[in-house]
Amino acid sequence: MAVGVSAMPPLGTIAGVRLGTVAAGIRKAARRDLVVIQCAPGTTAAAVFTQSHFAAAPVIVAKEHWRTCEPRALVINTGFANAATGAAGLEDARACCAAAARAIGCSAQEILPFSTGVIGERLPVAAVVAGIPAAVAAATEAGWADAAHGIMTTDTVPKAGFREVDIGGVPVRLAGIAKGSGMIHPNMATMLSFVATDIEAPRPLLQAALERAVKTTFNAISVDGDTSTNDALVVLATGRSGARLTAAEGPVFAAFCDALEHLCAELAQAIVRDGEGATKFVRVDISGAHSDAQARVVADTVASSPLVKTALFASDPNWGRILMAVGRAPIALDDPNRVVVHLNGVRVFRQGMVDPDYREEMGQEALAGDEIVVAVDLGQGVGRASVHTCDFSYDYVRINGSYRT
Amino acid sequence: MAVGVSAMPPLGTIAGVRLGTVAAGIRKAARRDLVVIQCAPGTTAAAVFTQSHFAAAPVIVAKEHWRTCEPRALVINTGFANAATGAAGLEDARACCAAAARAIGCSAQEILPFSTGVIGERLPVAAVVAGIPAAVAAATEAGWADAAHGIMTTDTVPKAGFREVDIGGVPVRLAGIAKGSGMIHPNMATMLSFVATDIEAPRPLLQAALERAVKTTFNAISVDGDTSTNDALVVLATGRSGARLTAAEGPVFAAFCDALEHLCAELAQAIVRDGEGATKFVRVDISGAHSDAQARVVADTVASSPLVKTALFASDPNWGRILMAVGRAPIALDDPNRVVVHLNGVRVFRQGMVDPDYREEMGQEALAGDEIVVAVDLGQGVGRASVHTCDFSYDYVRINGSYRT
Repeated sequence: MAVGVSAMPPLGTIAGVRLGTVAAGIRKAARRDLVVIQCAPGTTAAAVFTQSHFAAAPVIVAKEHWRTCEPRALVINTGFANAATGAAGLEDARACCAAAARAIGCSAQEILPFSTGVIGERLPVAAVVAGIPAAVAAATEAGWADAAHGIMTTDTVPKAGFREVDIGGVPVRLAGIAKGSGMIHPNMATMLSFVATDIEAPRPLLQAALERAVKTTFNAISVDGDTSTNDALVVLATGRSGARLTAAEGPVFAAFCDALEHLCAELAQAIVRDGEGATKFVRVDISGAHSDAQARVVADTVASSPLVKTALFASDPNWGRILMAVGRAPIALDDPNRVVVHLNGVRVFRQGMVDPDYREEMGQEALAGDEIVVAVDLGQGVGRASVHTCDFSYDYVRINGSYRT
Repeated sequence: MAVGVSAMPPLGTIAGVRLGTVAAGIRKAARRDLVVIQCAPGTTAAAVFTQSHFAAAPVIVAKEHWRTCEPRALVINTGFANAATGAAGLEDARACCAAAARAIGCSAQEILPFSTGVIGERLPVAAVVAGIPAAVAAATEAGWADAAHGIMTTDTVPKAGFREVDIGGVPVRLAGIAKGSGMIHPNMATMLSFVATDIEAPRPLLQAALERAVKTTFNAISVDGDTSTNDALVVLATGRSGARLTAAEGPVFAAFCDALEHLCAELAQAIVRDGEGATKFVRVDISGAHSDAQARVVADTVASSPLVKTALFASDPNWGRILMAVGRAPIALDDPNRVVVHLNGVRVFRQGMVDPDYREEMGQEALAGDEIVVAVDLGQGVGRASVHTCDFSYDYVRINGSYRT
């Protein structure tokens, strides 16, 4: 069960966006596994995709279509990732787009395909194609919660978020869903996540806002250090609210970026809370670096360390492992004696050794809950970065160390 | 139990090197925890040390002493790493050197100290100092096996190797011991390992041979991607064999490098076989890279991937995860379609998709044993690299995810 998560928050609608979810029998019977998200003409789309050398076929096709025109629909299947499937995989992805285009009445290039699931096996394209008309017909503006369920794979909870903010006197809405719990260490993009808003936004401005938002949200999370072949995040802007982005600066743009970043943070952190086997939700805060980029390198090193993550699983205030991880981070560290480490606010290390006021019981008490902040001040500048991660448990090994079924 | 390991190999002696091992009660009673390795005057020493920003106090002192003169003895304790112990830790390490110098009758600078164990707690220096005279008195040329036991911590088996080779018509011996099973991803040096030979070698030539040997051995292994604060590897050359290194080239140097590399490979691989929780011994071979360095980056990425390592634990031929790891390696990959993947000789992936002749049963059969070769040809050059690693099991989490005891 995801760390510190109860029910999905209440989700509103986004005018101009309709979602349909069906069980198409793609890999398992009677499982919601196909989602079609339609958007009204005039909608603009920003997107970021995986940087993997082995980007999946749907990622390749989605990028190609997205570069050509604005989308009219997103088609998402679970069960099979359609990755490492060669030329046949590209054909399969295109066949899904063609089927959606027929059902909706648009061109195939106006469809963006997304897949998630097993790598290396062909997509059962007949099942997807057969399911698309029903998913198109089922479309409703109230379909966000169903769609959040429909894109789940090893996720234990659906992940969705909704915000309404005032932008220049106009109420603007943002809604989003996400999936993912393993193979999570996004690089420029992440897992599958789909966000929509009713602001009006020329694509370059929407893209700028998205790239700003992912930097501190989806690109600042890690479950296991592994990056997926299928990562994608799309933001649709329907323009129905009456609010409008006109420049990549100023109070309107800033307010929208802020709202988008908050929604992305909520979705990205939901992925970490549902990280495979996670029992702890962990934020690694690095401060006092020469630059934000340097802080980020250290944060990634600490957040990816198996020894740090297994200690957190044990609620063990084993700060020596945190130092070990900082110690191997590929940065220039001017003076290790200036490094200060706090665990949930308790200072454990400073001036090259354990804090003289620290007692083991203080560390135990600090780590007793399921939310942990590991804070390291490098003492050499003002750069800072935060990364969200989870612990490393028996269940991570169970989930990933069982033969595929 | 270490993968594919039975008893220690028979160990010979190195003329001029005597080892004494005692139970000094440093952390636990009646456990062999203190080793003193003495070498005859005229011995030269090469060494490599951890690159951690938080190098332990004994590492700092050992480097300082080693730069000043040739050593007369190495003092190694287990139980406490004497890392992250500030100025007091440096004093403790120096106190151990002073005690050994008194017992042996040399200067403190001629002593190199090494520690391994818990990070962040003070070394009980009185116990170490009290134990040193007995360890010095117990010294014998036949002490290699006892010393291999005496440096163990979470190791489940002692690790030692011995070779006798003909160099320029002269029989030359090399013996070595090593310890380590977690926090293993050496960078320029590794864990604790001590090697001796009876060749005569000026320090610059011995150092050149050592740095050549570690590149493909100790620096090409990974258990968990984490690098220790206390890594050190020392090679002692007593000169008693009559063979002599005179230049960093030519057949004599090549023969010695070859022998040293083989011994280091044996010791480094013994560490991987005894990796925490290991059930599989894995070699990752990357070929067809633009350079050896590029191949090494890919090999490290595959060998450090939690998803690859948990699949290998399950004997699951889940080659999609191998592609995922290659896909996220930070290199330029000219054409993913030229990548070819073999699992223990079975071709699973080529031309962008699963090999048409591959069947799941072939992969299962290939991974049935406890030794696995993952071979990836990038198809873009002649660079190659191999890294040894192990799988990621429940026991890794159990060993590292239990509260420190």
